[in-house]
Amino acid sequence: MPKHPDPSRRSERSRQAILGAARELVSEVGYAKVSIEAIAARAGVGKQTIYRWWRSKGAVVFDAFLALSEVEEGGGMALPDTGDLEADLKLVMRATVAEFADPEFEGPIRALNTEIINDPDLAAQYRERLAAPVDEAKKARLRSAQRAGQIAADADLDLALELLYAPLFQRWLHRSGPLTPEYADALVDLFLRALRPI
Amino acid sequence: MPKHPDPSRRSERSRQAILGAARELVSEVGYAKVSIEAIAARAGVGKQTIYRWWRSKGAVVFDAFLALSEVEEGGGMALPDTGDLEADLKLVMRATVAEFADPEFEGPIRALNTEIINDPDLAAQYRERLAAPVDEAKKARLRSAQRAGQIAADADLDLALELLYAPLFQRWLHRSGPLTPEYADALVDLFLRALRPI
Repeated sequence: MPKHPDPSRRSERSRQAILGAARELVSEVGYAKVSIEAIAARAGVGKQTIYRWWRSKGAVVFDAFLALSEVEEGGGMALPDTGDLEADLKLVMRATVAEFADPEFEGPIRALNTEIINDPDLAAQYRERLAAPVDEAKKARLRSAQRAGQIAADADLDLALELLYAPLFQRWLHRSGPLTPEYADALVDLFLRALRPI
Repeated sequence: MPKHPDPSRRSERSRQAILGAARELVSEVGYAKVSIEAIAARAGVGKQTIYRWWRSKGAVVFDAFLALSEVEEGGGMALPDTGDLEADLKLVMRATVAEFADPEFEGPIRALNTEIINDPDLAAQYRERLAAPVDEAKKARLRSAQRAGQIAADADLDLALELLYAPLFQRWLHRSGPLTPEYADALVDLFLRALRPI
């Protein structure tokens, strides 16, 4: 097997095959039943090739999801900014709610959540590599709204994002209520009331 | 082994031994490594005794947690109601945040969450038996505040509870920020702004 003394010399083809195999297997049999062995067999590589680059099944699957996300290296994601904060946020939240109501999308994300809540290292990786760039894009939109006087200038934007997204996250994760466009709108309405300038 | 033709004739002593064993084992070795066999051995009962009353490891462990909770059969839980809504909610949320920051408390709850997010039946049982009575107590406090004109009379109280608790739930589950008294207060402040009568 070839040596990879430097991350820059990783075989991109093998890497992509491994990530694709991980995504396929999670979709086909569910996260719990996926093994490093099965990913290696599907990707046509040796198990050691996977362990050279990733320390666990969770880490491979996480990278497989990351490769799918809209976040590009160094950012590159932005929320709509028409100047109408309510309309922009309702558009975004309706789309987000629809994603979480879609079994194709939510299944793998549910599997990922199971991993990160029990693995602090993976959770930190998730925050740094996936959540932080997305949150940064959301905060950029809120900063624009602050400049426009639409939300309080002194608002804590991390807390503001939790207020907007955590209710949806909890309702989805615990399957405790319907995920509808009306729900998305109601969340945005409460968010805007909480954050409005005094 | 004795027959249990009717739930009312279950041996309460065996049942308590099983629940105690389940709690001890989850604390000692973590949920993933607990087996029905180990619970049976620790409780001094046969495996079939457990399967007669519970359909899965998750169900036993869930009941073990339920037996610990402050919720009594038929309710019996209430939030403080001094008339000062802000003070009452800050007291409750500071205590809740402190619980989730306590490893002794949060470990088992984290294990339970891992189960319920992947088991819709268990999630429904969790909502019905544990979450619903607690939510009902919280909503009773909010209804009192509605009568006092402190929060909007037409507020959706399920959504209101999500707004107040889900940010804490997500921050705890993803370990994405500090769990402090100041955080509890900031959540209550935003909640009161969102729900205030117009």
